[in-house]
Amino acid sequence: MKNTIGNNLSVTLFGESHGEAIGCVIDGIAPGVTVDEAFIASQMEKRKGISSISTARREADRVKIVSGVFNGKTTGTPICIMIENSNTKSKDYSLIRNLARPGHADFTAECKYRGFQDYRGGGHFSGRLTAPLVAAGAIAISALRSKGIFIGTHISRCGDITDREFGKIKEDIVMLDSLDMPVLCEEKRKKMLSLIESVRAEGDSIGGILTTAVIGMPAGVGEPWFDTAESVLSHALFSIPAVKGIEFGKGFDFATMKGSQANDLFAVREGKTVTLTNNNGGINGGITNGMPIIFSLAVKPTPSIYKKQKTVDMMTKEEAELEITGRHDPAIIHRARVVADSVTALVLCDLLTTRFGTDYLGCD
Amino acid sequence: MKNTIGNNLSVTLFGESHGEAIGCVIDGIAPGVTVDEAFIASQMEKRKGISSISTARREADRVKIVSGVFNGKTTGTPICIMIENSNTKSKDYSLIRNLARPGHADFTAECKYRGFQDYRGGGHFSGRLTAPLVAAGAIAISALRSKGIFIGTHISRCGDITDREFGKIKEDIVMLDSLDMPVLCEEKRKKMLSLIESVRAEGDSIGGILTTAVIGMPAGVGEPWFDTAESVLSHALFSIPAVKGIEFGKGFDFATMKGSQANDLFAVREGKTVTLTNNNGGINGGITNGMPIIFSLAVKPTPSIYKKQKTVDMMTKEEAELEITGRHDPAIIHRARVVADSVTALVLCDLLTTRFGTDYLGCD
Amino acid sequence: MKNTIGNNLSVTLFGESHGEAIGCVIDGIAPGVTVDEAFIASQMEKRKGISSISTARREADRVKIVSGVFNGKTTGTPICIMIENSNTKSKDYSLIRNLARPGHADFTAECKYRGFQDYRGGGHFSGRLTAPLVAAGAIAISALRSKGIFIGTHISRCGDITDREFGKIKEDIVMLDSLDMPVLCEEKRKKMLSLIESVRAEGDSIGGILTTAVIGMPAGVGEPWFDTAESVLSHALFSIPAVKGIEFGKGFDFATMKGSQANDLFAVREGKTVTLTNNNGGINGGITNGMPIIFSLAVKPTPSIYKKQKTVDMMTKEEAELEITGRHDPAIIHRARVVADSVTALVLCDLLTTRFGTDYLGCD
Amino acid sequence: MKNTIGNNLSVTLFGESHGEAIGCVIDGIAPGVTVDEAFIASQMEKRKGISSISTARREADRVKIVSGVFNGKTTGTPICIMIENSNTKSKDYSLIRNLARPGHADFTAECKYRGFQDYRGGGHFSGRLTAPLVAAGAIAISALRSKGIFIGTHISRCGDITDREFGKIKEDIVMLDSLDMPVLCEEKRKKMLSLIESVRAEGDSIGGILTTAVIGMPAGVGEPWFDTAESVLSHALFSIPAVKGIEFGKGFDFATMKGSQANDLFAVREGKTVTLTNNNGGINGGITNGMPIIFSLAVKPTPSIYKKQKTVDMMTKEEAELEITGRHDPAIIHRARVVADSVTALVLCDLLTTRFGTDYLGCD
Repeated sequence: MKNTIGNNLSVTLFGESHGEAIGCVIDGIAPGVTVDEAFIASQMEKRKGISSISTARREADRVKIVSGVFNGKTTGTPICIMIENSNTKSKDYSLIRNLARPGHADFTAECKYRGFQDYRGGGHFSGRLTAPLVAAGAIAISALRSKGIFIGTHISRCGDITDREFGKIKEDIVMLDSLDMPVLCEEKRKKMLSLIESVRAEGDSIGGILTTAVIGMPAGVGEPWFDTAESVLSHALFSIPAVKGIEFGKGFDFATMKGSQANDLFAVREGKTVTLTNNNGGINGGITNGMPIIFSLAVKPTPSIYKKQKTVDMMTKEEAELEITGRHDPAIIHRARVVADSVTALVLCDLLTTRFGTDYLGCD
Repeated sequence: MKNTIGNNLSVTLFGESHGEAIGCVIDGIAPGVTVDEAFIASQMEKRKGISSISTARREADRVKIVSGVFNGKTTGTPICIMIENSNTKSKDYSLIRNLARPGHADFTAECKYRGFQDYRGGGHFSGRLTAPLVAAGAIAISALRSKGIFIGTHISRCGDITDREFGKIKEDIVMLDSLDMPVLCEEKRKKMLSLIESVRAEGDSIGGILTTAVIGMPAGVGEPWFDTAESVLSHALFSIPAVKGIEFGKGFDFATMKGSQANDLFAVREGKTVTLTNNNGGINGGITNGMPIIFSLAVKPTPSIYKKQKTVDMMTKEEAELEITGRHDPAIIHRARVVADSVTALVLCDLLTTRFGTDYLGCD
Repeated sequence: MKNTIGNNLSVTLFGESHGEAIGCVIDGIAPGVTVDEAFIASQMEKRKGISSISTARREADRVKIVSGVFNGKTTGTPICIMIENSNTKSKDYSLIRNLARPGHADFTAECKYRGFQDYRGGGHFSGRLTAPLVAAGAIAISALRSKGIFIGTHISRCGDITDREFGKIKEDIVMLDSLDMPVLCEEKRKKMLSLIESVRAEGDSIGGILTTAVIGMPAGVGEPWFDTAESVLSHALFSIPAVKGIEFGKGFDFATMKGSQANDLFAVREGKTVTLTNNNGGINGGITNGMPIIFSLAVKPTPSIYKKQKTVDMMTKEEAELEITGRHDPAIIHRARVVADSVTALVLCDLLTTRFGTDYLGCD
Repeated sequence: MKNTIGNNLSVTLFGESHGEAIGCVIDGIAPGVTVDEAFIASQMEKRKGISSISTARREADRVKIVSGVFNGKTTGTPICIMIENSNTKSKDYSLIRNLARPGHADFTAECKYRGFQDYRGGGHFSGRLTAPLVAAGAIAISALRSKGIFIGTHISRCGDITDREFGKIKEDIVMLDSLDMPVLCEEKRKKMLSLIESVRAEGDSIGGILTTAVIGMPAGVGEPWFDTAESVLSHALFSIPAVKGIEFGKGFDFATMKGSQANDLFAVREGKTVTLTNNNGGINGGITNGMPIIFSLAVKPTPSIYKKQKTVDMMTKEEAELEITGRHDPAIIHRARVVADSVTALVLCDLLTTRFGTDYLGCD
């Protein structure tokens, strides 16, 4: 359903890049979940990225909770979150309004909204709309933590540089939480930063891969068909702008694996059924098996670059050239990771609410 | 929503591997779509795979249309499709009932359904439930063809063997339609077949990658958030058993690309706005741009192998060993491609119905 | 969503009056609910009505459970129910195919389905499709009973004859369960029967009012906005053919009441908060308050009568006269009551599943 | 789905009576619909009621459109509407916080939200949340008018006073639009006003019946099962606080009618198929037939009265007495009518969008 996602816990997103405000409505979250405004603010900071490599628009991103929170706890009724747009440069969009920016949604927006869309700064398609998702996700992350469920995302690849894999996941998640540039290996972190720096100097941008781990999810959540855990996670995660791929566990590496290598054998550890490997990324038959959920997201390079590009004038239907000016990020992947964490948290809260009822997340 | 997918055109799936019948209900398809039973039957044949490499259970898979079709056309009311299970060996499942088969859903089913699930042959999780999806998809494929929209899927990789990429897509789709083993390059087709043959001889199985192309989709279909074209396609496609990854366009290769390489530049060809490359796989900002939709699916090796495997007895909670006997496929990827086509067709019909209304697919 | 209803417990309905079979798919019912086939059969009998006053088509209505039940219990996966159509007279519909029967859906079906609908016997609009709803409802009624929740419906009015109100509701429900003609007062029961008999003699039909009571529902179920308990009940109940009105508690009588008369005052009885009156029919602010849920349904007279009626030929667009022959009921209200019970049960199971999770109804 | 309603055009409601603001998000409205802020403001005025009989809280109710409107037209992306709460008296709620007000949702809110709800002024249950529904509805009403579809509601009954029925509907709708007290017959209007006045003097309140007419709806909209036009209208309309009943066409009067009286006979007028009567209120088999849609709503008296009432202390679980002070309406029915119009308009826009696609309402 268009700008709403979720079955029992849903999020409805609204706003445009250069409108007055952006925001979302979270509905179906259990009453009694603690809302930690300082934590929300810290998540918003993570989304802003690293100032040294981001020349992009910077907003205060003060999160205003309009409804659904009372005395510091969720009430169980809809939470409306609003974030003002203040730093909207009054530039003259009319000059480039008709030139479809390559890699952006200008052309598809025109096809869908027939000229009525707010075209300023990407309008409703702007990556800026991930800000309310991060605010909403922060509440979901808190709710999950109170149930012993933790989420962390690192940049597993950027250009040709690959980070180490998750090791002791809980410790890695704690470390990632403290990093602006979420790379597990310090050396690789520096290399990725210089790569991004050099790309910026060229007026270009670079893509990458994010890998997310979730620990503590109970087994037995998700559905065999259509609402598999993979289905609902991918559905939500493909909404993050620039995400063009997702794989669970070994993902595309399964193509060269045999069944005898791919199958995760079962064992008993401390009285609990576990698997000895986790090639399936914590999900079998669409349902969580209690092992860590592991998936990776392909993130394309941000399409706003300073190089001159061929395009088409959407009014005259003639070919044209476009030179994008203004503020752009040479990489968004380090910013996208908190969006990935947030969207993941919202989906998991929805799955848990479906399975265990509407009180579950708010009870001790 | 559990076993139902789709907004305006929905499919509800039911049945178990060893129950009396399996089937689905398609709702929301336009009145007036021609239902070609011979085409449905030919799609069912494709799903059965190649007899020389499949030792697996073979069913007649006669598709019975119980409702919603009148005088050879859809009525616009729900179409119920039923397929009898006839070849259900009456083997004694009680011996292995409690041993969770690695890579299968036995353990997660137990966690979710608390012992009440039908465990025979995978029950509701069985790949056999893709049969009604293929029957439903055949109707959707026909409806799309009448609108000039065509879908084809090839095995782009199996083990270390890679097929050539799509060339002239329309011609490739026609060729794929005629193949049991859907590989574009004849030489690679033979190589893949011998690889599967050798894996079968070992009592093992092998994974692969499917790549799908769709041509003729109008631009402007999909939503910017949550119901992006990528979101709804991935949601549905992750329901296909064994699918563990999906990427659109360049997908995970974007990780090493720069914006200047990744952006698809616009041009005008025959009065129509096109892109000069198609790295984004026909989707920008979640919305179709009129170029071919291209995506790949990672398919894990079928988990049923003849090798002895470690597992856990779900009743006693003790470790055990399991040797699976019976009929298994060494590869399912050549069978999965028609499921991919079918699921894709159902999703696209849903998106078109949402955009253009409930009559669209049934009108000339 | 078209032919599917419910959020966490859903029902998808399919079939046509003169097709091969009709049925439905129930999804989301908890694993472990006992399925009592004898009880289902007894509910089907109630729906058939009283043979002395029904000249209408009589079917065996044998309920076949195709999936989702294993060893006498629900598995938690979709339950497909099928009922064959056997008694479909091969009469020549072509003669009257184009004459819109007044009060029926022939004309609106033509407007919606553009000539592709199955017009035989009302097609998908036929009251016959309530048969699978009754079968599905029987499972829901059993699940509710295991939780101490009971439902009963009586004919509170038929023509000018009014039944007494519910007294000791539990006892009344037990009595209604044993009656073909569900009227609480024996004298009124006889009067209604003779009224229906006399209407039948005239070749006419008569309407009435059904009143339903539910006891044992926990307080706190339903939503303040949009999915109020009244909203979801009315949504489902208006699907019963011929239902044209619904009121909760005092309903339309509130029009002449003052707040001081209408408000239900609170008191404590046996440690439980109750209301001293139940004018609100067990629902405040859209949420159950633990008192009996009480509502009434207005049921219009069945539109099939033997009198000559003015109508329009839908092909020629000319005025015409129509004389309906064949088998019709002079009243359907005594048959509709089990449909009302069934639909109510399905809705309540959905609300309980949403509130308490997907295991709730299957646990002791 | 909780606080969201609608399939293709949805509304998500948020806010509490004494929070900072209330509002809603409308999603799925076609791009290009003209947004007339003066008309929105005039609808908001109608909702405020008549100052002479309303002693209740009065707010400026300035509607702020945060997103989704650009250059005076809908963009097709979500419209967020915000209305500030300014007149929230800082009274000490702690004194009465635990006393459940009879007829209100205080007790059911406690059962559902387990003490975490915002209890001030009814919180999320407050009739104040109909304000954003009226603002959203104003946009829907404009969209419908551009398609020749008009809606009007009058008070057909209040206490023992009954208004005349709709006559020339279009003219009646125009007249109703200009009235604060929407009664068709001038004499009855005065009588109802004095009744309300006298009830106010007693410190009491009074209920009534609203009757709504819609003209211009095309035939063929709605679904045969579950999403019947009656189902989706009633679902939405039961969300209006105080609505406890709905009937279409003759509604509960069908109980005493025979089929020969109830059936609407078809005829041809000006080349169009019409019915000679409209007992079915414009809907057959759940689908619009092109005749005026007519329905009535039972509205209970507002439960806030000045008389001392018995109740229960929700903390101590002991019986108590309650005297409600502050600002209350002796009647809300004249205010509710614009809410009924608004909710009806939103539902009809959804149905039309489903049938004719997402562009329909924005095209000329």
